[in-house]
Amino acid sequence: MTSSALLTDHYELTMLSAALRDGTADRHCVFEVFARRLPTGRRYGVVAGTARLVELIKAFRFGPEEIEFLLGRGIVDAATAEWLGKYEFRGDVDGYAEGDLFFPGSPILTVSGTFAECVVLETLILSVLNHDSAIAAAAARMVTAARGRPVIEMGSRRTHEESAVAAARAAYLAGFAFTSNLEAGRRYGIPTTGTAAHAFTLLHDSETAAFASQVSTLGKQTTLLVDTYDIAQGIRNAIAVAGPDLRAVRIDSGDLSVLASESRALLDSLGATDTQIVVSGDLDEYAIAALAAEPVDAYGAGTAVVIGSGAPTAGLVYKLVEVDGRPVVKRSEHKGTVGGRKTAVRRHKPTGTATEEVVVSLGAPEAQPHDRALQRPFLRAGAPAEDLPTLADSREHLRQCLISIPWEGLKLSAGDPAVPVIMTGGSA
Amino acid sequence: MTSSALLTDHYELTMLSAALRDGTADRHCVFEVFARRLPTGRRYGVVAGTARLVELIKAFRFGPEEIEFLLGRGIVDAATAEWLGKYEFRGDVDGYAEGDLFFPGSPILTVSGTFAECVVLETLILSVLNHDSAIAAAAARMVTAARGRPVIEMGSRRTHEESAVAAARAAYLAGFAFTSNLEAGRRYGIPTTGTAAHAFTLLHDSETAAFASQVSTLGKQTTLLVDTYDIAQGIRNAIAVAGPDLRAVRIDSGDLSVLASESRALLDSLGATDTQIVVSGDLDEYAIAALAAEPVDAYGAGTAVVIGSGAPTAGLVYKLVEVDGRPVVKRSEHKGTVGGRKTAVRRHKPTGTATEEVVVSLGAPEAQPHDRALQRPFLRAGAPAEDLPTLADSREHLRQCLISIPWEGLKLSAGDPAVPVIMTGGSA
Repeated sequence: MTSSALLTDHYELTMLSAALRDGTADRHCVFEVFARRLPTGRRYGVVAGTARLVELIKAFRFGPEEIEFLLGRGIVDAATAEWLGKYEFRGDVDGYAEGDLFFPGSPILTVSGTFAECVVLETLILSVLNHDSAIAAAAARMVTAARGRPVIEMGSRRTHEESAVAAARAAYLAGFAFTSNLEAGRRYGIPTTGTAAHAFTLLHDSETAAFASQVSTLGKQTTLLVDTYDIAQGIRNAIAVAGPDLRAVRIDSGDLSVLASESRALLDSLGATDTQIVVSGDLDEYAIAALAAEPVDAYGAGTAVVIGSGAPTAGLVYKLVEVDGRPVVKRSEHKGTVGGRKTAVRRHKPTGTATEEVVVSLGAPEAQPHDRALQRPFLRAGAPAEDLPTLADSREHLRQCLISIPWEGLKLSAGDPAVPVIMTGGSA
Repeated sequence: MTSSALLTDHYELTMLSAALRDGTADRHCVFEVFARRLPTGRRYGVVAGTARLVELIKAFRFGPEEIEFLLGRGIVDAATAEWLGKYEFRGDVDGYAEGDLFFPGSPILTVSGTFAECVVLETLILSVLNHDSAIAAAAARMVTAARGRPVIEMGSRRTHEESAVAAARAAYLAGFAFTSNLEAGRRYGIPTTGTAAHAFTLLHDSETAAFASQVSTLGKQTTLLVDTYDIAQGIRNAIAVAGPDLRAVRIDSGDLSVLASESRALLDSLGATDTQIVVSGDLDEYAIAALAAEPVDAYGAGTAVVIGSGAPTAGLVYKLVEVDGRPVVKRSEHKGTVGGRKTAVRRHKPTGTATEEVVVSLGAPEAQPHDRALQRPFLRAGAPAEDLPTLADSREHLRQCLISIPWEGLKLSAGDPAVPVIMTGGSA
């Protein structure tokens, strides 16, 4: 991995320069990542990106090229450049597990160490968590709306080429079954899928010729795209070419609820009773939910998932809350913001349903049965914790978390956070 | 640059496999990139990302690692793997200059070559152009709203860490004066800026100590952030520490219109009549416009610019329009979509004001005085054209284009495209 060290805002290095010079750079600091609020109407957030972040923090080193740039531009002085040349994060990072839920005020990441070593990570930490958490939250709602039917992520073309890879990862974490993105397949082991676009049909002299070619190369366990010309004729052509053992047809345009029913009836009449129907085309969680009663077997979601379905960033901030053991807080903050390092537990009924999240500053919450401590170590003195969860672990963790919230929390309609956050203790 | 070859959707390679096997892979194809519509209410789009794209196309090679992944997953067969190993784009790419405007149906990029060599670039082309164009369009509106006052891009933390670099570039292209993103400074030569966050003040024993440290390190030509505690006291502390020659103060919270006026009056009363006022905090084009009458000297824009101010993707598609000289079109397309390679000119009054954009399929538009041909070569037989514009050129080009559109086109309110597109000729 190339250096991530310049994925950083200019002001972090000017603050560093000044702090190195005035002697405050070594003060022990605690920074916390949290959201002041969820996107309007959302009932939960989803923590995502932590494993990517741990890798990027390890790669956060200033090599000769980075130093040369910073000195050449006059962004840092020689003393700061020397310090950066030796930089390696040696502090601690704790936080909510990837795939856990969060609510307004949840301390999802806690970074502690010297001011100098923590302040330079601000932009990188927020970029990763804001992006990936936004995608995961939208994707989780789509998975809920799909009610067990598989959802395929196919939005790479609608977002930055590297965001696309991270978005595929976040969507898979949230329960998507596949991605179209090959780099996500390579980098994270996510199952990839895809068959053909309209261009493939248009390339050929006829739709039948295109289908015959596809089946010849990919076999009958493929999905034929039937809406290039006329959908009913497309389905007849598909079954004529592949026979009733064709795995699936895909419809990418039109009124999908009507088309799904008509297509199902037509496929059945052709004896293709096991041929599945995949639908795609501007699907978001609401469009998916609206198809719940239709004979759809899988959904392809593109644009909406990679742009967070209206909330493309998670609103997470990185705030200094403690200096040398002293809580600090910006005076103009909302009243709910308290200084000091926080500890968090989620309380549950004996049945397992979450009832509230308790966030305590400067201390630990009084223990109750069915509490779950929400923070775990990611880095200790700069070294990754030994038991970091895999992507599959995080995917399962989110699935369990979504089972645990009150059922209102899974509604797609606008509402309050599914679990109230109780902030206690602390000072300001 | 590492390989960009897997920033690709799975189906492009399955289509390739089938086309290689059935003999259609070498058919000469023309693909076009266009938007069916602008984001709701927007009056123009801005082409951005082309120079990035040219670099990524050059890096689009399948090395042993990429081939191994594809074969291991069974995504391609041995014959396709061999073809990919030798792949290098040898076709032509033409398009609208970076920084030009576009409207619904404008053929902003035309890719021609064999089906095989063109189809594999679909995702990469769309990812780059959809992202960068979305950011540039939003940023251009903010620059218009700022009426000549400088705007600083500081949104890196709200988007994916690599999107952030591309977003800084797109915002600069659109007329932003600076970015906070250091990698954008290194990669594209964009001026970077930044001074301090609230954390720097909180780190110190007092606001005055923080300001003294900053001024000691960065000099009086710095910007002091004055809203950590009390803004009026912060301004007094700033001038007490730096004297009336302080370059600027920054306010990042509160009702900026009231605060700007009060701060200006206070600074003037302290003799700091040349000290500038920089405002930031959830500014979009509307919030910037609302501050036009206030004594603000510069704006910092973050979240809104990197998420396209409500339109985070530009809605561009990549469609096959011609096969071996024969126009092709998907039957279910809107009536406005026509097959065949397009040529485009923008018509102007003698005064230079654009009146319409003429898009002709299968031929060239009848020449009129004050026409400007919109397409230019980017790649010829795979090689970059010699006179590719610099980022500074593209920035100036957009500035000129925005001067050329009817004045209604610069309004922030929702409206029709500023320049109508006339589609003529062609067949379907």
